Amino acid sequence: MVENCEYGDRIEVHTMKEIYEGIYLPSPETGIILLKLDNGYNIGFIKKNISKLELVKKKDESKPLFEVVRDGGKPTIGLVVLGGTISSRLNPGKGGVDFVETPEDLFQFYPELFNKVNVKVEVPFMKGSEDMDYKDWQKVAKVVKKMLDSNEIRGVIVTQGTDTLHYTSAALSFFLQDLNKPVVLTYSQRSIDRASSDASLNLECAANVSLSDVCEVVVVGHANSDDEFCYAIRGTKVRKMHASRRDAFKPINSESILKVNKDYIEIISEYKKRGKEKPKIDTSFEEKVAILKFYPGQSPDILDYYLEKGYKGIIIETLGLGQIATSGARLSWIRKLKEMQDKGIVICATAQTIYGRLNPLVYVTGRELLKSGIIYLEDMLTEVAFVKLGWVLSHPEWNVKEKMLENISGEFNKRIVE
Amino acid sequence: MVENCEYGDRIEVHTMKEIYEGIYLPSPETGIILLKLDNGYNIGFIKKNISKLELVKKKDESKPLFEVVRDGGKPTIGLVVLGGTISSRLNPGKGGVDFVETPEDLFQFYPELFNKVNVKVEVPFMKGSEDMDYKDWQKVAKVVKKMLDSNEIRGVIVTQGTDTLHYTSAALSFFLQDLNKPVVLTYSQRSIDRASSDASLNLECAANVSLSDVCEVVVVGHANSDDEFCYAIRGTKVRKMHASRRDAFKPINSESILKVNKDYIEIISEYKKRGKEKPKIDTSFEEKVAILKFYPGQSPDILDYYLEKGYKGIIIETLGLGQIATSGARLSWIRKLKEMQDKGIVICATAQTIYGRLNPLVYVTGRELLKSGIIYLEDMLTEVAFVKLGWVLSHPEWNVKEKMLENISGEFNKRIVE
Repeated sequence: MVENCEYGDRIEVHTMKEIYEGIYLPSPETGIILLKLDNGYNIGFIKKNISKLELVKKKDESKPLFEVVRDGGKPTIGLVVLGGTISSRLNPGKGGVDFVETPEDLFQFYPELFNKVNVKVEVPFMKGSEDMDYKDWQKVAKVVKKMLDSNEIRGVIVTQGTDTLHYTSAALSFFLQDLNKPVVLTYSQRSIDRASSDASLNLECAANVSLSDVCEVVVVGHANSDDEFCYAIRGTKVRKMHASRRDAFKPINSESILKVNKDYIEIISEYKKRGKEKPKIDTSFEEKVAILKFYPGQSPDILDYYLEKGYKGIIIETLGLGQIATSGARLSWIRKLKEMQDKGIVICATAQTIYGRLNPLVYVTGRELLKSGIIYLEDMLTEVAFVKLGWVLSHPEWNVKEKMLENISGEFNKRIVE
Repeated sequence: MVENCEYGDRIEVHTMKEIYEGIYLPSPETGIILLKLDNGYNIGFIKKNISKLELVKKKDESKPLFEVVRDGGKPTIGLVVLGGTISSRLNPGKGGVDFVETPEDLFQFYPELFNKVNVKVEVPFMKGSEDMDYKDWQKVAKVVKKMLDSNEIRGVIVTQGTDTLHYTSAALSFFLQDLNKPVVLTYSQRSIDRASSDASLNLECAANVSLSDVCEVVVVGHANSDDEFCYAIRGTKVRKMHASRRDAFKPINSESILKVNKDYIEIISEYKKRGKEKPKIDTSFEEKVAILKFYPGQSPDILDYYLEKGYKGIIIETLGLGQIATSGARLSWIRKLKEMQDKGIVICATAQTIYGRLNPLVYVTGRELLKSGIIYLEDMLTEVAFVKLGWVLSHPEWNVKEKMLENISGEFNKRIVE
């Protein structure tokens, strides 16, 4: 706490070089003075670098620190809040983070979202994204569907933790068909009360996209580690590719759809536009699906586990163009995979390299695996394949192979070469 | 076959724009005339674009098509050939590829390697890299060790298939300590008889590095999809990141060590230099180690399989900063992981995002997992962690946690930020 100043006061911070004015915020890091500038950016100052602090205006005790002002002239969007870092603040006492639980609390940390839009908030649950699974994706899809059906709402933003955000974006891409509005997932990698949180830019850019004519499920987030602009990436062509960087989400085997600035949008590649579609929802999911990453020397006995446990489908993350071990008595993967398929388990192959497209025809191994019935999923991401397989297998009336190879929500990109 | 010309003849190919001269090679692709230019580059011409073909010189029937000329003035390097695409040629009859089995055959396809060096070839086995496991890594290490101990040999090149090359490079990084010469792994993504194979540049650059003062295990390969220069990447900080591109191998959480051109080398980052070390070999390996990729909703019952099968260690590819599911009765991962560790199984965590560094201290889940005894492997790659754990666990005299967290062969990069 700084002498004579309280959190919420408007203050000036003088450094050797410049003077900054903004709202004084509680900083979870000791030795740091945290300021919310009028442009919405949180900036932290190391105390020893501050030459002077001046009070500009005491906070008005009769009003909340930040206020949600509804403005009839602005468009309304839906905001689905699910937890994660974008809804977390540090708890220095505990040494970790806590969830920010009310819309008002959220607003306190990113009022700039409300500059352009009115926001209808729904909070179906609050959890870390590592704890989310298909039942949560089903809940989210239902909440989003209600918003798609509302005449008032122009577009939908979904915020959650980053760890499984790309799974949720894939799930919404399949569960919700014939979209009539943008469905925009966003996140932050730094909790919102930290200096230079990425939440503010991501949310503002997500709001821009939610008002756009992109009628797809997309992920919007930092394009690089500068706090300048975002990309909007197709929900089936995106993966978390860094544990901590702000630009953790990258388009895979695909270009981004949009470059998104705070005030305007640039189109990078083709997308589905707003039309007169009536959105449909289909959230059924077969939970007995698994991901299995192949590694050198791995015994195929692992497949027995899935058989015994009644699994219906497995995504194998294969090597290179779609290879697994074939030689040696102990490594009789092909025999075992045939046996599994004879017993009705669907086996699909994806690429452990993440980037690129499988091609089972180049090597003998691949051709033998293909002959055994394995479905080669070309350039589809493992995570997307997992979600799609669970969804497809829950429809006994569908031809599994045909559906898995049908480009339903942009999960294949036929155009990438090499 | 072209009229009046035989494979091995020196011919001229006239196109609308230019005339090319070189050795006429059998092309596996129909409609293509394949030429090996004097600069070592294979170039393919579509027949309909050829205006004229002219015989320059018949091949000398008394000599082999290409000849291995030993030149006393050149330095000698060791070449360990293990199979893979770099040793494969297309078999149009079978519709796949066959291995090129003798050094002379190899030489036919990349004589440019022999421009600068004499080559001692060893072929301990020939297989697709998808079939290699720790027993093969042990064999390779022993062959390389012999070459390290030879006074004649300046440096060692190892060629193998790309699919598990980064596992082999990790294994050699741990199995061979106190190197006295460079150990350079290289590869090709296109079989060597195809127009624009990447083998030639990779081998020439690998030869340059094998003569350099880099006393580490490195992977040398195309820096981008142009056929211009290569990077040399530390063997513990490299991963195959594309199914088919020539620049499939990328440095992860690290810079490359060298930029390698055909004729010279540029230093990018620090490395261990040639000294007076006496190389040591230690190839022991505990085969009961596994990689387990966590996915949303995954049941912890999978751990029972590893317990029953007598596994000694598991690398869990975790979400984000090192997270797995913690909530729900069905998802009692923490309890199960504690139980596994109580029974003596070592559990390590790596990052599913591939890029970035784990940090278990940010979230409650991570702190609980850390407390349960899990070893968080910071910025170490999953594949490297797997190899290292197998190696460390085979030494009962070592403290496993200490050894796993010791930076033995550059597998940790303490310097990366974010």
